[in-house]
Amino acid sequence: MTDTTSPALTTALGYHHAWTSGDLDGAMAYVADDVVCDAPAGRLEGAAAYRGFMSPFVRILRRAELIGAFGDDDTAVVVYDTETVPVASSPAAERVTVRDGRIAYSRFIFDRTPFDAARRAANGR
Amino acid sequence: MTDTTSPALTTALGYHHAWTSGDLDGAMAYVADDVVCDAPAGRLEGAAAYRGFMSPFVRILRRAELIGAFGDDDTAVVVYDTETVPVASSPAAERVTVRDGRIAYSRFIFDRTPFDAARRAANGR
Repeated sequence: MTDTTSPALTTALGYHHAWTSGDLDGAMAYVADDVVCDAPAGRLEGAAAYRGFMSPFVRILRRAELIGAFGDDDTAVVVYDTETVPVASSPAAERVTVRDGRIAYSRFIFDRTPFDAARRAANGR
Repeated sequence: MTDTTSPALTTALGYHHAWTSGDLDGAMAYVADDVVCDAPAGRLEGAAAYRGFMSPFVRILRRAELIGAFGDDDTAVVVYDTETVPVASSPAAERVTVRDGRIAYSRFIFDRTPFDAARRAANGR
């Protein structure tokens, strides 16, 4: 499933394995300072904003399972399922552009609905 | 970006190009009768259920843009952005398993939130 001859995929998987192991510092080493990420809630610009987006998710992550990983010279797609404290199964896909060994652009796809529902339930609404 | 030497990707792209052109009959020719699809709202079983899931989406689709397509012998990932009547930009990823030239399993990822918001707005709630 995994073509490790892809330089972009090597970066994407280095990032993926780091953050899914709880090592957000290690993951950010694969992310460009001026990264742009189009996430479900909108565009994030810069590594600090990206870290602020990932950090709460890493804290609630129980388990991640890689279910697809492909790439070529400068793009890669990583698809995985996650188990988090509030949501038993939530898959996500990241389609990244890599420049100089770091993620310069990411299109980040997941369904916000179960997370919003869990938040409302926790708030008693 | 596209490795057309992948048999699974050839199927996934045949399906993708058909439905994004509005040809749902043509797309379903690439989908196994006993397809299983894990979609955001839950599991769909069988081609009729799958068609019932895709049909309303094809009707509201204005435009789709392929932003990632990779595969190997039996799996493929297709990532694309969509413009629909209610939602200007909504990306999706499909990670499929192909058997005998047809999609046997699909993990379908997109954010339901903007579609639900548009539905509530249309209903005046």
